[in-house]
Amino acid sequence: MNTEKTELIANWETLQRIFIRPENDAARTVLVKYMEQILFGLHDFLKAHVGITREASLEALSEQFKESRMGWHPDKKLADVIRGVIETIAPHAVNVASPYFVGHMTSAIPFFMVHLQTIVAALNQNPVKLETSKVVSILERQILAKIHRMIYRRDDGFYDTHIQNPDSTLGVFVADGTVANLTALWVARNTFFSPKEGFEGVEAEGMAAACQAFGYDRCVILVSRLGHYSLRKAGGVLGIGNANVIPIDADSQNRLDLRHLKSTIRALNGDARKTKILAVVGVAGTTETGTVDPLPEIARICRDNAIHFHADAAWGGPTLMSRKYSGLLKGIEQADSVTIDGHKQFYMPMGCGMIYFRDPHMADAIAYHAAYVIRPGSVDLGIRSLEGSRAANSLILGSALEVMGAGGYALLIDHGIDTARAFAEEIRRRPLFELMSPPRLNILTYRLFPEPLRHACETGDPRTRKAALEQADQINILVQRLQREAGNSFVSRTTLKRPGHEDAAVLRAVIMNPLTDIRILREILDEQEEIYRNHPEG
Amino acid sequence: MNTEKTELIANWETLQRIFIRPENDAARTVLVKYMEQILFGLHDFLKAHVGITREASLEALSEQFKESRMGWHPDKKLADVIRGVIETIAPHAVNVASPYFVGHMTSAIPFFMVHLQTIVAALNQNPVKLETSKVVSILERQILAKIHRMIYRRDDGFYDTHIQNPDSTLGVFVADGTVANLTALWVARNTFFSPKEGFEGVEAEGMAAACQAFGYDRCVILVSRLGHYSLRKAGGVLGIGNANVIPIDADSQNRLDLRHLKSTIRALNGDARKTKILAVVGVAGTTETGTVDPLPEIARICRDNAIHFHADAAWGGPTLMSRKYSGLLKGIEQADSVTIDGHKQFYMPMGCGMIYFRDPHMADAIAYHAAYVIRPGSVDLGIRSLEGSRAANSLILGSALEVMGAGGYALLIDHGIDTARAFAEEIRRRPLFELMSPPRLNILTYRLFPEPLRHACETGDPRTRKAALEQADQINILVQRLQREAGNSFVSRTTLKRPGHEDAAVLRAVIMNPLTDIRILREILDEQEEIYRNHPEG
Repeated sequence: MNTEKTELIANWETLQRIFIRPENDAARTVLVKYMEQILFGLHDFLKAHVGITREASLEALSEQFKESRMGWHPDKKLADVIRGVIETIAPHAVNVASPYFVGHMTSAIPFFMVHLQTIVAALNQNPVKLETSKVVSILERQILAKIHRMIYRRDDGFYDTHIQNPDSTLGVFVADGTVANLTALWVARNTFFSPKEGFEGVEAEGMAAACQAFGYDRCVILVSRLGHYSLRKAGGVLGIGNANVIPIDADSQNRLDLRHLKSTIRALNGDARKTKILAVVGVAGTTETGTVDPLPEIARICRDNAIHFHADAAWGGPTLMSRKYSGLLKGIEQADSVTIDGHKQFYMPMGCGMIYFRDPHMADAIAYHAAYVIRPGSVDLGIRSLEGSRAANSLILGSALEVMGAGGYALLIDHGIDTARAFAEEIRRRPLFELMSPPRLNILTYRLFPEPLRHACETGDPRTRKAALEQADQINILVQRLQREAGNSFVSRTTLKRPGHEDAAVLRAVIMNPLTDIRILREILDEQEEIYRNHPEG
Repeated sequence: MNTEKTELIANWETLQRIFIRPENDAARTVLVKYMEQILFGLHDFLKAHVGITREASLEALSEQFKESRMGWHPDKKLADVIRGVIETIAPHAVNVASPYFVGHMTSAIPFFMVHLQTIVAALNQNPVKLETSKVVSILERQILAKIHRMIYRRDDGFYDTHIQNPDSTLGVFVADGTVANLTALWVARNTFFSPKEGFEGVEAEGMAAACQAFGYDRCVILVSRLGHYSLRKAGGVLGIGNANVIPIDADSQNRLDLRHLKSTIRALNGDARKTKILAVVGVAGTTETGTVDPLPEIARICRDNAIHFHADAAWGGPTLMSRKYSGLLKGIEQADSVTIDGHKQFYMPMGCGMIYFRDPHMADAIAYHAAYVIRPGSVDLGIRSLEGSRAANSLILGSALEVMGAGGYALLIDHGIDTARAFAEEIRRRPLFELMSPPRLNILTYRLFPEPLRHACETGDPRTRKAALEQADQINILVQRLQREAGNSFVSRTTLKRPGHEDAAVLRAVIMNPLTDIRILREILDEQEEIYRNHPEG
């Protein structure tokens, strides 16, 4: 055992010192120096690398992380930990900040977000209750009102009434979009199966008793089959059953098919199993294709049928800040609840989900009071949220809105959509490629579809056609994998289901990094063409 | 409109710049300077303040946060945002880092935690999938194994097999203890109501169908009435019903009463409503009194009755690192699932919950696969967690374990328990006070109980007694409030239920800050005595 290491912290004097921020300049300078390494040492490394390197290295990497014993003595000084992250972790992490990383909804964030996250950690407030957050809870209410207003555009009087009223809930900060969607459906479930004569409500008595009390065999949620899998998961968690999260067909433009929605509602209303439709979900920015469901029409159908209308705008929500493109989300202001993710197009650090409610009293259906911390009528924000303790992410979002302005965000949104459209044109221009879903927002899918396969599909018999499509799938799977392993750029891959067509393996691009421009996207296509030329058989 | 402000960011060139970490030294220096302000400007301010200031100021504060419109143009530079946090937010936040803040489970964190949080933000990895985290997902598995080993102490072979096996789940990082408890009960629910002939499982078909398929009228969860309210909430969310989270009496030492547990199980087994007992929860460190339920005995009862045994060690878990006090959690290794919070006694930033499983395949009951990102057999950690996108908190915990060693954490744990015991002695020594729950871990409750009231209680008739107890309650409520408002120190207040006694308003102290010593605790009592002398009527 190294005695020097023992002295690092595992003695009382050293231990106390790490809780007292140092008073002398030398120690302060060291701590600031560490921040410099974190900000720039990491960056300098990442600049030289991108993406996941070699697939094969995964197993080798795993071998280095197999020690399961917790050491008794300190093993590293902070300086060594930071160096270790830069030299050992960063090289094998994923450089999501690269403009060539266009495969997922995780991307570069402005550097000031790192500072804001540092502030949140340094303050260490806990908005679950006022006694551990005070002004931060009040600030959180303000930020929630700003985003609510972005969505619902109610008047000054509305916001004056609710913004700082502890009995109102305009929205809630949650862990992520999954918890936001879950919260929306939780509210919908409890609102319908509410207490009545002889029944204390579904929250108290559970789903079996609720169905019995209301005379239903089951309840269901309707969502486009392009909806995020978190909605199915929410159905499972809530005791509704994920098989009762019923997929509605998408049309040729990957939007929820209204005719199928209406016929499904009709069928369910006439079902032999007495069925309650708890909610219809409209997606504003589907994960796979970035498309937006016909929100105004869904809103009308929900109104006519007294169904909760939830809009999953985890991805697309911030589009509302764009003067050019906010119209794409028309109808969202009619949703009873709306999910938006902060770590997506608000460019915040992981993970910040939010859920908003049209009716400021709707979230009362999920309120919990604990005698020892949370008292009715208090400003304790933990009353109406799934989680208890959590970070003060509102401080990040609120500050980011000040630094960027809605106008700054609008530039990012516009750049993403404009660049995605230019990318789509480029794909259309290249004979090797087929655009599979044009970008409605800033996401598109495409595939390599070489002329011989295209020809075989158009003119061949069913068997020839099937073989050609299978080969196309193989080519796209291979090209995506080899490009990822080469480590210069990254697009993701998914399986696209299209009405009237076979499922297809496609490449997926998400354009959110402002440094991703059409030149870079052309390079990505060039590389894919080259990989294909070297492996034309797939 | 201020044209200088417009130029801050809402133009494309400036906007791009904030995504490119600066190359020149001057700009780098500025960014580092900001970090210095965050680390020390905040600190210098907080040093001079503590706690929630004046109750009355809350309304006045709210008035300053009533603007609900989102500005189009940037409003502040980063430097101004940081200054604003220091000058406007920090003064009205809560100085949870003060050694005089002993009222909640939120406290000081070592300064290096702020650096580690900054690293996580700078890397911006998303462990939901390997493609956005790679080595960080592998590291996460290692850290989970280390904590699993701390709890379950299985042998090398066990960990060699499971630590990096994508089909095994030793534990999951989640948002907080609430989500951890929810996950445990979700697993217990799905494990019992699993698929069988003619039934696809509760996750697919929901609670109503599950009860029908298995012939139950309801299912229940048993937990000490001192259990955290998140357990009731979990029952509500999961469709079990929070009224079916049945409180079991606590004994005179605030531990779950085994006789009442056994008689409740017997009664439920003979209930006219056919009832399935899904889980019994044992608490290792109750929120109110810090007591530990009799875990080995609960384990045996659960084994005998084939019931899932969940241990909520959100608070107490890290006690296992102490050689002196780990015995207090004896029996936890027999729990099927264990909750631990990182932001509590691992001294991590908000919010980091964790859930651990004795059986590495138990979490398969909650697995979700999404075709487009997560493929069976992959290392994607999002497969078996409630949340999707989330921060790489394992990097913080893993680094903290290196910097502190288990030995460093043990010193903190020992200090907390030893100091709480010394505090209890001090309370016993002072005639004005009554110790209500002695510290089993590092939490205790007490109250001011002046001699005249004590005397009236002991000798008076029931009405005199009742009046005396009511006055005692009023005194404690007032003293706690006035002390909080004075802003020098903070203990929390709760209502303690005791078998055979009336409910009592009590003061609650949580000793986790290593700078909180007996001298400070004496000062807190001195101040309470002085407040009482000035307001003896309550």
